[in-house]
Amino acid sequence: MSKTPLKIAIAGLGTVGGGTVHLLHEQAELLAARAGRPLTLVGVAALARPLDLPLDGVPFFTDARAMAKDCDYDVLVELIGGADGIALDVVKTALGRGRSVVTANKAMIAHHGMELARLAETNGGNIGFEASVGGGIPIIKSLREGLSGNRVAKVMGILNGTCNYILTTMRDQGRDFGDVLAEAQALGYAEADPTFDIDGIDTAHKLAILASLAFAMPINLDGVACEGIRHVSALDIRYADELGYRIKLLGVAALIDGKVEARVYPAMVPLSFPLAHVSGPFNAIVTEGDFVGRTVLEGRGAGARPTASAVVADLMDLATGRTMPTFGVPVDRLTPRPAATAEAHRSAYYIRLMVKDQPGVFADIAAALRDEKVSMEQIIQRGRSPESTVPVVMTMHETDEASMLKAVARIKTLAAVEDLQLIRIENL
Amino acid sequence: MSKTPLKIAIAGLGTVGGGTVHLLHEQAELLAARAGRPLTLVGVAALARPLDLPLDGVPFFTDARAMAKDCDYDVLVELIGGADGIALDVVKTALGRGRSVVTANKAMIAHHGMELARLAETNGGNIGFEASVGGGIPIIKSLREGLSGNRVAKVMGILNGTCNYILTTMRDQGRDFGDVLAEAQALGYAEADPTFDIDGIDTAHKLAILASLAFAMPINLDGVACEGIRHVSALDIRYADELGYRIKLLGVAALIDGKVEARVYPAMVPLSFPLAHVSGPFNAIVTEGDFVGRTVLEGRGAGARPTASAVVADLMDLATGRTMPTFGVPVDRLTPRPAATAEAHRSAYYIRLMVKDQPGVFADIAAALRDEKVSMEQIIQRGRSPESTVPVVMTMHETDEASMLKAVARIKTLAAVEDLQLIRIENL
Repeated sequence: MSKTPLKIAIAGLGTVGGGTVHLLHEQAELLAARAGRPLTLVGVAALARPLDLPLDGVPFFTDARAMAKDCDYDVLVELIGGADGIALDVVKTALGRGRSVVTANKAMIAHHGMELARLAETNGGNIGFEASVGGGIPIIKSLREGLSGNRVAKVMGILNGTCNYILTTMRDQGRDFGDVLAEAQALGYAEADPTFDIDGIDTAHKLAILASLAFAMPINLDGVACEGIRHVSALDIRYADELGYRIKLLGVAALIDGKVEARVYPAMVPLSFPLAHVSGPFNAIVTEGDFVGRTVLEGRGAGARPTASAVVADLMDLATGRTMPTFGVPVDRLTPRPAATAEAHRSAYYIRLMVKDQPGVFADIAAALRDEKVSMEQIIQRGRSPESTVPVVMTMHETDEASMLKAVARIKTLAAVEDLQLIRIENL
Repeated sequence: MSKTPLKIAIAGLGTVGGGTVHLLHEQAELLAARAGRPLTLVGVAALARPLDLPLDGVPFFTDARAMAKDCDYDVLVELIGGADGIALDVVKTALGRGRSVVTANKAMIAHHGMELARLAETNGGNIGFEASVGGGIPIIKSLREGLSGNRVAKVMGILNGTCNYILTTMRDQGRDFGDVLAEAQALGYAEADPTFDIDGIDTAHKLAILASLAFAMPINLDGVACEGIRHVSALDIRYADELGYRIKLLGVAALIDGKVEARVYPAMVPLSFPLAHVSGPFNAIVTEGDFVGRTVLEGRGAGARPTASAVVADLMDLATGRTMPTFGVPVDRLTPRPAATAEAHRSAYYIRLMVKDQPGVFADIAAALRDEKVSMEQIIQRGRSPESTVPVVMTMHETDEASMLKAVARIKTLAAVEDLQLIRIENL
């Protein structure tokens, strides 16, 4: 066994940083046997030295930038987070020095991935970002390597554990969004400012990364249309159940006629589809390749230990020289692909209206759909309540989103319609 | 881009060989871009030159052994099949010449993997066998690389598409085993001699390979206990449905107190568990690692195109120099681990008895279970039919297999019991 260690510096000792330190410590012997050389911590940086981590003898830095600049490491592991600021600084410093970087930072990769990949290529370093998408699921490796013989037509997934936990709990306990979110915040499952998660931004970051790998294109975060889960109600979840669906926040990227349609939205997923059964903190990613067909990878999407597993997988690749260009091919060989307009999307749809129970309302709704050539599949209306509103649920056959949105806009103008929620149906 | 091609010779142009030729031809440009060099066919061997494959200008051999010995290739792709014979000969020849091998041959790897890995190490070649387990699913890569930071405690899966197709069809159509098998044979989904598939031998080969990677141990095919699906009846499948289970042929390997329990058996899998929803020709593998937790990888387990996807993933790794020891660590560093005895297994159980409806029978059955300290969970007995037999179904709480088998042996001796089927329940 070669005795030259892989020298590792970790910037950030929060949840994932702590998990990574534990993994490197607990599995030191196993990792050395598999890599053929030890993986050695040569520096850690955090605001204060944590007392509960096995860091005896490891140089400690309160200034991550100083560590990135001065410490003698082979790989800098960036676990600070945030698209810019210190995280970006230390990564650029490391790459500028010709060193490699491993990161769990999806925001940074989604915003600055091209610039960083170029910096790595110029200076001879590598970037590992397995931990940035899907926690411990080896999805980056699968797309970059395991499925590299395929043209990928579609990649989609449940990519945010917080949203999946909230939607799963809403369904299991019949509770409303705000209520479950507040509980998730109290339990530490959701951030005090949950915007990134529940408005789909975190999912958009991850989807932009997956789309780049899947379609060998530069990252295009601006091309991702984004809708979160705030408007999903307990009532919609009950109707979804009745119709044979689960509601999941999906990121979906498809390559259609050379254009990329990349969207984040809550969708009704049929029970026969694997994603319907991915619950709680789990993530799952579906890939459709022209030779392999459909694959599904599922696992824990966050947390100290699963994410550390992904960080260390990247370190093991670096330790053994299994490297490749950041996004599968050199940056200059990535093919820019235009984003498809959201209106060009085709899908089946669920709409739920709260309607005043007056004569003739239904004829107006049906006329709006007919005029836009939107074809109804099912209607559920139960009970009547003159003087108050009742829910009317309709599902539509696959149709153009532009037509559906026009019909919806017209229906919303009807005096008897007090509320209208639209949820896409992801049939496969 | 380096212009030195990776020179590939393919031995065997059956289903998978043909799929691989098609993939290399159709995706040539994509593969060259991703690998940074062309992947070039320099020889193919088969009994007769196939006319429907894009092989213009590729040297053709009717003698695969001659090609292995004389052709100037970097990688020999072995797609002949069979544990021994020509397949083994050409692989040994290639490795002996210091060349690399890519194979889909689970029987050969399960029987001769250690010898071949040693030969590769001695002569400086590499062995890729992603296609040997789970078709297009990148499970070998995930275990060897993506999860390499973990100690794996358990790996299990649905590894045989033929059995999964038969069991799925039996359930969907309420038909019996023999009937569905005959149809599967007529449709080409099952071999004329289906023994390897339906008696679990193919699954055992694959499980032995997965266990070696998961537990960093030499392959131990003899240590795999094997039970097939011939005895699974439509009646049992109906009862499984009623109890909230699906019956699946599983391969399960667990590392318990330093011993490896590796078994193939049909099992009842609860609907809440991901494997319950893997149907038809799909395979899926569950891995439990100490850091990553549970991951599930699902995809098509066989067929020309999915298997070609896995073969080419291995070729891409060789083309880019992303290589590693065959079983993750060098052969001499693999840790032999004793096999646990089947009797030490603990599980929940389902038994179905055909019982003559006589007074006192049930007391005898209950006494047999009580005496072996086997604790009943549920009993289903419906309808009565004096003079003929009726099915009685019981499920047991988790218990030692040794106790369960003793109780079963005693129940079988009862005059009123005409048939007894036992199926394990895989709770998680």
